[in-house]
Amino acid sequence: MLTADLLHASLGDPLLDVMNFLNEIAIRYPDAISFAPGRPNEKFYDPQQIATYLDAYQRYLREQRGFDDARITSLLFQYGRTNGHIGELLARMLEKDEGIRVAPESIVVTVGCQEATFITLRALFSKPTDVLLVGMPCYIGVTGAARLLDIEVAPVPERADGLDLDALEARVRELRSQGKQPRALYLVADFANPSGRSLPAPARHRLLELAAREQFLIIEDNPYGFFSREGPRKPTLKALDDRQQVIYLGSFSKSAFPGLRLGYAVADQRVTDAAGQHHLLAGEFSKIKSLLTVNTSALSQAVVGGMLVLNEGGLLEANQEAIRFYKTNMDATLQALERHFPKSEAWARDVTWNVPDGGFFLVMKLPIEADEALLEESARNFHVLWTPMRYFYLGTGGEHELRLSCSYLTPERIEEGVARLARHLQKAILERQPAPQVRAG
Amino acid sequence: MLTADLLHASLGDPLLDVMNFLNEIAIRYPDAISFAPGRPNEKFYDPQQIATYLDAYQRYLREQRGFDDARITSLLFQYGRTNGHIGELLARMLEKDEGIRVAPESIVVTVGCQEATFITLRALFSKPTDVLLVGMPCYIGVTGAARLLDIEVAPVPERADGLDLDALEARVRELRSQGKQPRALYLVADFANPSGRSLPAPARHRLLELAAREQFLIIEDNPYGFFSREGPRKPTLKALDDRQQVIYLGSFSKSAFPGLRLGYAVADQRVTDAAGQHHLLAGEFSKIKSLLTVNTSALSQAVVGGMLVLNEGGLLEANQEAIRFYKTNMDATLQALERHFPKSEAWARDVTWNVPDGGFFLVMKLPIEADEALLEESARNFHVLWTPMRYFYLGTGGEHELRLSCSYLTPERIEEGVARLARHLQKAILERQPAPQVRAG
Repeated sequence: MLTADLLHASLGDPLLDVMNFLNEIAIRYPDAISFAPGRPNEKFYDPQQIATYLDAYQRYLREQRGFDDARITSLLFQYGRTNGHIGELLARMLEKDEGIRVAPESIVVTVGCQEATFITLRALFSKPTDVLLVGMPCYIGVTGAARLLDIEVAPVPERADGLDLDALEARVRELRSQGKQPRALYLVADFANPSGRSLPAPARHRLLELAAREQFLIIEDNPYGFFSREGPRKPTLKALDDRQQVIYLGSFSKSAFPGLRLGYAVADQRVTDAAGQHHLLAGEFSKIKSLLTVNTSALSQAVVGGMLVLNEGGLLEANQEAIRFYKTNMDATLQALERHFPKSEAWARDVTWNVPDGGFFLVMKLPIEADEALLEESARNFHVLWTPMRYFYLGTGGEHELRLSCSYLTPERIEEGVARLARHLQKAILERQPAPQVRAG
Repeated sequence: MLTADLLHASLGDPLLDVMNFLNEIAIRYPDAISFAPGRPNEKFYDPQQIATYLDAYQRYLREQRGFDDARITSLLFQYGRTNGHIGELLARMLEKDEGIRVAPESIVVTVGCQEATFITLRALFSKPTDVLLVGMPCYIGVTGAARLLDIEVAPVPERADGLDLDALEARVRELRSQGKQPRALYLVADFANPSGRSLPAPARHRLLELAAREQFLIIEDNPYGFFSREGPRKPTLKALDDRQQVIYLGSFSKSAFPGLRLGYAVADQRVTDAAGQHHLLAGEFSKIKSLLTVNTSALSQAVVGGMLVLNEGGLLEANQEAIRFYKTNMDATLQALERHFPKSEAWARDVTWNVPDGGFFLVMKLPIEADEALLEESARNFHVLWTPMRYFYLGTGGEHELRLSCSYLTPERIEEGVARLARHLQKAILERQPAPQVRAG
């Protein structure tokens, strides 16, 4: 009765298989050392914490907010406000941790950052000529969501120091000349997934200027901003945003834990309707959210509420141990790469990688193709997993690159994993590349 | 910078304000007696239960499934399988409570039934000529989600005994003759929201025959099926479905609690791709889900997992007290209506209502318009809330009807609320309707 051509066209796009691949590959190869998923480490988790946080949030509601038992029960069990019940705590957190000052009403609590992304795209993109700008390579959650909504995506290349703003400017003008409207740019300014790159501080100011001049919004996604490895943290685009040009997307998957499925969007833009009335964009988002998920799990909100209450309103301090852990892991990965891919060896000479300032990811370049066949070999024969960068490009790109995520492992497993990867790549490079001709001379 | 015409056109549709209205009206008038929201009663909730359920689920994982502490922590805290980790428990529950036999792999755990609806629509609707059939009046979560995805909706009238199957058949043929494809029919066969109506058992067989002959799928949404007031429960369409024509949507908002945001879709259809390979439709759904919410809150899944483990795998028995409570409330509502709208009074003579077999809702018909102005009067001056039926119709319809939801109240509050409603409607009918001419004779 059902044939694939009857289903939405996005389901035939290989892009949509990738999210599942990333989510489920760890399940397929449970014993491999996995540099594949962008998962936080589980050493910081303990099931006892859940009751502690739930209790703390209930105590806060009772003691600070004057809720009685019936109101607490209602908040935890019943349908709730579409945009969530922890907006005030989140506004306080954003000011404390990020220097972002916004009203609680501007915050939409979502089922993870992914729902925030989806809502943002559905709200902003209306006409077939509307185009979403994304840095290339790009997180699949964004390009995939755009595909689901039949939104055209225009890639803009990243350089070693983050998004290429000259290319962005040229791209915007090119799109305009084609009668298209670049409505928004999606980017991760800090320790991007997948590239690990960050936008330098001066470029952030230039990007805000460019967005103002060219009239597009910026969708800033910041899941990794806490996890700086070297140097001071840079201000987010939203912290620099004095003209409400930035929609800021946040996640608790790394700063708290992924099982919550909790994120948020800050949408403090004013929307003017046909009658000249002003509305907050966050209010428009709530209309969409009510038709996707009604509201966000009250339990998940209560757990994060409890964490915030127990940590003086912020999560940056509470994450200091995690920040050190991820720094140690990235250092260990970089050192292991130096050791196991020595430049003195001919096979390793054309294997290179970037050196991120923080975050969970780095990218290796190989002299051979980093495709699914190579990954299957890695998994089956060498018990090590990684992610082909090809998945993160639209059109062509990334064919010779792979992403390593070092967040989920320990330094010992990283050392062993990089050693396995080196053994595999040495074999694969020697098999697949013809030995270089010795030049006469 | 932002004007409303730049946003997705659905945001300008009054339909999208209604979901928020239904979700938030109880917050706006906290002291009114509210027959408005389709909320379950909170008397069955106690915050202590959350820890009990979470503990029971962890014990089940440890003792029945052989999970060690690390694996339990990972399940609760980490990213998880897109389609959820309680599929086996849900398959057992469906067999026990509903006589529905499906494989766990056919079940997609979702963020409430609303996400299941959205995913189903995104998957099935591909071309501009694809049309969704819905019974009229219809739950706004469905027509709103279709609007968000620019899917054309074709209404089919309900009769006193549920969906009009003759009209459905005529509608399908009419659409086909216009070059359109009716891809699926959405319906609530048991105690529908908003009408309270149910499809008689013989009509269920006829509907399945019709769907097979006319090649459309049935999306059966069953949030209220437990809550029978009179007579035996009817078999769901899915329980009768021997040709995989029915996608079944379930919710834990009424059988457990709404704050979980937990629902599911059963999508056991086989999809044949261009290469002749077969896939489960549930697998296609997972691709979409991964781009909406990644996966469903592990905590919410664990709470329902614990409830199922503590209740021998089903929830019907555990809901017997709730079932009696909602029956008592519906009885109380019907009796109060008889008492406060006596046919002996001229003003009440043209006020009528239906007598549902179960569920949360009934519909009143008035001789005056049941519009927002009347509702505001009710709320402000008589401290009683209800829902205009107009909201549940596309095009015209329902102008003189209102929905009463009797789930959220007690029999005492129902009595008082119906008394207030009668006082208001008496006043409004006498003011708005000219006194009937006394006929000569």
